[in-house]
Amino acid sequence: MRFISGDKEAIFQQLHTAVVDEAQIETELAVKRIVADVRENGDEALKRLTAQFDGVTLTDFRVSQSDLDDALQHVEADFIQALEQAKENILSYHQKQKQSGFVDTEKRGVMRGQLVRPLETAGIYVPGGTAAYPSSVLMNILPAKIAGVPRIIMVTPPGADGLNPYILAAAKIAGADEVYQVGGAQAVAALAFGTASIPKVDKIVGPGNMFVALAKREVFGIVDIDMIAGPSEVVVVADATANPRFVAADLLSQAEHDKLARAILITTSEPFGQAVASEVEKQLRTLPREEIARASIANFGQVIVADSIEAAFEIMNDIAPEHLEIQLENPMDYLSYVKNAGSVFLGAYASEPLGDYFAGPNHVLPTSGTARFFSPLGVADFCKRTSFISYTKDALEKEKDAIVLLAEKEGLTAHARAIQIRFEEEN
Amino acid sequence: MRFISGDKEAIFQQLHTAVVDEAQIETELAVKRIVADVRENGDEALKRLTAQFDGVTLTDFRVSQSDLDDALQHVEADFIQALEQAKENILSYHQKQKQSGFVDTEKRGVMRGQLVRPLETAGIYVPGGTAAYPSSVLMNILPAKIAGVPRIIMVTPPGADGLNPYILAAAKIAGADEVYQVGGAQAVAALAFGTASIPKVDKIVGPGNMFVALAKREVFGIVDIDMIAGPSEVVVVADATANPRFVAADLLSQAEHDKLARAILITTSEPFGQAVASEVEKQLRTLPREEIARASIANFGQVIVADSIEAAFEIMNDIAPEHLEIQLENPMDYLSYVKNAGSVFLGAYASEPLGDYFAGPNHVLPTSGTARFFSPLGVADFCKRTSFISYTKDALEKEKDAIVLLAEKEGLTAHARAIQIRFEEEN
Repeated sequence: MRFISGDKEAIFQQLHTAVVDEAQIETELAVKRIVADVRENGDEALKRLTAQFDGVTLTDFRVSQSDLDDALQHVEADFIQALEQAKENILSYHQKQKQSGFVDTEKRGVMRGQLVRPLETAGIYVPGGTAAYPSSVLMNILPAKIAGVPRIIMVTPPGADGLNPYILAAAKIAGADEVYQVGGAQAVAALAFGTASIPKVDKIVGPGNMFVALAKREVFGIVDIDMIAGPSEVVVVADATANPRFVAADLLSQAEHDKLARAILITTSEPFGQAVASEVEKQLRTLPREEIARASIANFGQVIVADSIEAAFEIMNDIAPEHLEIQLENPMDYLSYVKNAGSVFLGAYASEPLGDYFAGPNHVLPTSGTARFFSPLGVADFCKRTSFISYTKDALEKEKDAIVLLAEKEGLTAHARAIQIRFEEEN
Repeated sequence: MRFISGDKEAIFQQLHTAVVDEAQIETELAVKRIVADVRENGDEALKRLTAQFDGVTLTDFRVSQSDLDDALQHVEADFIQALEQAKENILSYHQKQKQSGFVDTEKRGVMRGQLVRPLETAGIYVPGGTAAYPSSVLMNILPAKIAGVPRIIMVTPPGADGLNPYILAAAKIAGADEVYQVGGAQAVAALAFGTASIPKVDKIVGPGNMFVALAKREVFGIVDIDMIAGPSEVVVVADATANPRFVAADLLSQAEHDKLARAILITTSEPFGQAVASEVEKQLRTLPREEIARASIANFGQVIVADSIEAAFEIMNDIAPEHLEIQLENPMDYLSYVKNAGSVFLGAYASEPLGDYFAGPNHVLPTSGTARFFSPLGVADFCKRTSFISYTKDALEKEKDAIVLLAEKEGLTAHARAIQIRFEEEN
């Protein structure tokens, strides 16, 4: 792991000369072509692109209800039970995110309010292959369920050997209304524009490879999308009171995701940092995914030695990590130090995988520093707001002069006229 | 105005063969070049591009506090008073949108919660020239103020004759913390990446021309942005009990905005539709902005005759208008019919300009059918959420087997190990 230390400014300097993502113009153009193709040619394009990219020839994209039911029979009972437990925790957490509208009648003759309503359809993208995670199916579908979205469409790429039964079982448990086997940029385009087979949706969420991510950006505005996801990261803020074995294990659980994943320890104690680094090396050797985790640690693993807890949190807020573990004594004391982080894990036993699978908060989180402005996926992502007003004639009369004045200053005479005409005799 | 009638299916068919926006690839590439230029060359690029596009040579972009104070002296007292009244209404409405976090301690040893915090910086784009609207300054800045954003940066293009004092006065009244004179795609790039003069922000909001809109889409993910805005529209649902003069005036207040603006009446009464169409023609002749309004009405004005109120609302929901006026008897009875609309105006006296300037709900609304999934600008747009969890050792022990099982099914052994290691003796 790379060691970084010095005063805060020196640390900022070193952090900010890190990776720069070069725009992938070629891939962007390829994605634009795929999206336009599906928009124009619908199912014909989908079939052709599915044969080309997935090597599978399909006549029908829909996964039948009986296939979904069968999947439940083909996975272990203890897996279903664990998934049901996770579902219960996810539901009870997200239930608390539900918002209501409001109505305000403070001024006589005036009513102002806001409705909060679910989207009518949501499209959930679920990756195939080795990145197929049943937990992700739950995390993406359940907030839409709680929002009250009546039609939840899941898409996932077809495999040469059929679909992953764990994914289908998760879809069934989460309550996907319809499942289609189609993937990549073509699936995103189909959900955005609709085809004869695939329904058009209001919003597309879910993780995916570069093609999926670029396609989502391409159709943003035609439909809504969730966030733009980049490589994932964890920051652990820990002092010498923490357990280096726990911290090392948590860093590695991030590192095993992806060679680009970033596992970062910020500590006030250099010896503690050394102890964690040796533990990381020791534990690495026992991991089936050692190769991936080792590359991540070698390229992006960092131990940052800060000269105070204050400085540690300033550095953490500057990184704005997806996951933040606070392994300090009395961790709750430091929650108020957190400005930018997707999800915070407090204390020695709130290990990141607990949040990934089970505790209830969403594991779809803002990555790569976007926690400065993006939020965890939640119920609000599947709702839209509508404002409303009602005024009596008397109430409008009291405010009409100010409205007319503002409209005229902006040169919008027809706006002024629309107010004035309501107080004029017909001629 | 174009008349459309028939059964619901026939109406849908006619609506959906409307305008198709062709991708403006050339402009997209020009915008990409501007954004890359500012990212790479900072202030030098900003100065060069400002000279090129705005015809103004600047040495300093910052508008001083004394210039802002002066602006208040250079506009009429009744204008300031009207703007202050509007501000009060906007604040009292948006105050009700504020959200709190929560904490849940339902399970022994488990704490789960959510923080809601303001963004640290927001960038507000305000157009110059003839599209400079003081009301828009209030509508974009005040929700950020209520969210608690501590640093609100406004940018607006420089003019050869200096800046519009009404815009500067509005900035002062709304409480912009810093104002810079820079516009176009270069301003968006500066806010996204930061330059020596212009601070980097977390989110960019505000209306703008095609260059501004494409630049916002280009930097989405580096920062957050508000919605992608297209041409603006109003749908009025009215029956024969409504006043055709009022309805015509409201349609025209939309039409005067822009030749691409859409003013649509959906009615159950063809004679009423005829009466509105003649009123539109009559009132058009009296408007200073007749040319713009006439073009909008000629190209996009529609009277849709529906065979029932139910059908009228189905058509309206399919259009998903930015503004919806319900001019029926007992308009509140129909609020539950509204699925997709940005803002709803109920009854004969809730004219759209009342909402544009004064009532309090935001006038930054989802346009061009995006009310299916986008919402009015609001306090939530300037906040981010962070989840947090804390578990005791006992609480984790109860759930550890399920977590380990799920992690292993996903092939993420290091995830499973991070949980297990907490219950193992050190060896």
